Amino acid sequence: MDNRPIGMFDSGVGGMTVLKEVKKKLPNESFVYFGDNKRFPYGSKSKEAIIELTKNGIDFLIRQNVKLIVIACGTATSQALEEVKRIYKIPIIGVIEPTVQYMEKQNYKKVGVIATAGTIRSKGWEEAIHKEIPNVEIQSKACPLLASMVEEGWTDNQIAKLVVNEYIKDLKNIDALVLGCTHYPLLENTIKEQLGKKTETLNTGKFVAMKVEELLKESQMQNEEKKEEDKIFLTDMTTHFNEIASRLFGEEIKPLQAQERE
Amino acid sequence: MDNRPIGMFDSGVGGMTVLKEVKKKLPNESFVYFGDNKRFPYGSKSKEAIIELTKNGIDFLIRQNVKLIVIACGTATSQALEEVKRIYKIPIIGVIEPTVQYMEKQNYKKVGVIATAGTIRSKGWEEAIHKEIPNVEIQSKACPLLASMVEEGWTDNQIAKLVVNEYIKDLKNIDALVLGCTHYPLLENTIKEQLGKKTETLNTGKFVAMKVEELLKESQMQNEEKKEEDKIFLTDMTTHFNEIASRLFGEEIKPLQAQERE
Repeated sequence: MDNRPIGMFDSGVGGMTVLKEVKKKLPNESFVYFGDNKRFPYGSKSKEAIIELTKNGIDFLIRQNVKLIVIACGTATSQALEEVKRIYKIPIIGVIEPTVQYMEKQNYKKVGVIATAGTIRSKGWEEAIHKEIPNVEIQSKACPLLASMVEEGWTDNQIAKLVVNEYIKDLKNIDALVLGCTHYPLLENTIKEQLGKKTETLNTGKFVAMKVEELLKESQMQNEEKKEEDKIFLTDMTTHFNEIASRLFGEEIKPLQAQERE
Repeated sequence: MDNRPIGMFDSGVGGMTVLKEVKKKLPNESFVYFGDNKRFPYGSKSKEAIIELTKNGIDFLIRQNVKLIVIACGTATSQALEEVKRIYKIPIIGVIEPTVQYMEKQNYKKVGVIATAGTIRSKGWEEAIHKEIPNVEIQSKACPLLASMVEEGWTDNQIAKLVVNEYIKDLKNIDALVLGCTHYPLLENTIKEQLGKKTETLNTGKFVAMKVEELLKESQMQNEEKKEEDKIFLTDMTTHFNEIASRLFGEEIKPLQAQERE
């Protein structure tokens, strides 16, 4: 038993889609979220910069006394997870491995992956999928505008529909589409409309939730009863975070200003 | 007389709008363009990162033996120009000062400024305009998606129209709109359609061209006759640069891979 909170890290509002799924699965747990939206987007940053920023985020969460950290960001998972797992002792979970573990059990012939330019360039998803499912065909597509569009709060207006269509129109005959950036579940309805019913959309948050549950059980680190309020910290309070997050959770989300160390 | 080329620096394809204007005004000059599109967008990067990248760009251009450097990027001008002017001996021109010099001679009551989030946050335009024209009213609007949209090549499709409208719909009764990011002249037709005829759009490239001409004359550094071909260097060859730049210039633009020093 361990009543410390679970830490979650993202470059902005995207990780809130992961938080939502993990909270749903583990209602007894408390959470501390750190959204580094002052440096958003990570998708166009160098690997070195992303590792540095991810370490900053982890340090912040460790100071908040968390028991486990989720890198709730596709770009940071693909670019920095390996490195930070080597450095830190605290358990760290990314979004790729849990999703691939789910995919392994399906019988997919062809899958699509959409993500930021940096994630697609890193081939993090492709390599992880092919390692476990060597014969699946993968069609990858970088979508440089999508995460920024979500941070603007444009998730179901006409712009969102047109931009999503422009990016996914060439993904044909796929059994499943990996939403390889945690911002994208905020566009899931729009994406599903365009994809049609035959294609499953894979929201990484759901698989992360299963993985967190498994890890807490194995190591007997579950919280028996939720006593602490969740805390949401941001590095920039001037964005549309509250509006987007509140819509996602169906209740008002009130973030706090993260005190950063220089 | 100085037959060395003029250097131009941008984070991507935006600076090509400045190159176009300067070439038009100074047909005898040769140019070397350095587009750091591998690190695009600058608009969301920290001041320190932008200064570092701007210094890299200037160093590259100096190695190409240029006589003068234009920072053909709104973000780099607002965040790094002051610093690099202090460090380097070579004449360096940004996009803000020449534009404000033109604005001074007009009789504007109210102007708008659109630019990247970083540029708007820095208040570079506001402060420069108010220093010279204290009584003008300024309405600023950060447009985080616009430059990325241009880099995708979406400049006159329906997405471009809707996104531009979303950003400029609140800019009312302005006499002029400063296109505070050099990517935006690629959207000028779309912007003009939405603004209506009463509002002038200010393409910074035109004013930069006047300033470069003035500086070359003063210091007697004009080229008498163009003998060298222009050279366009990029840090990332995998983007839509060629397509966008070729459309802008009405002729095929063939960029070269910039050899970077680590």
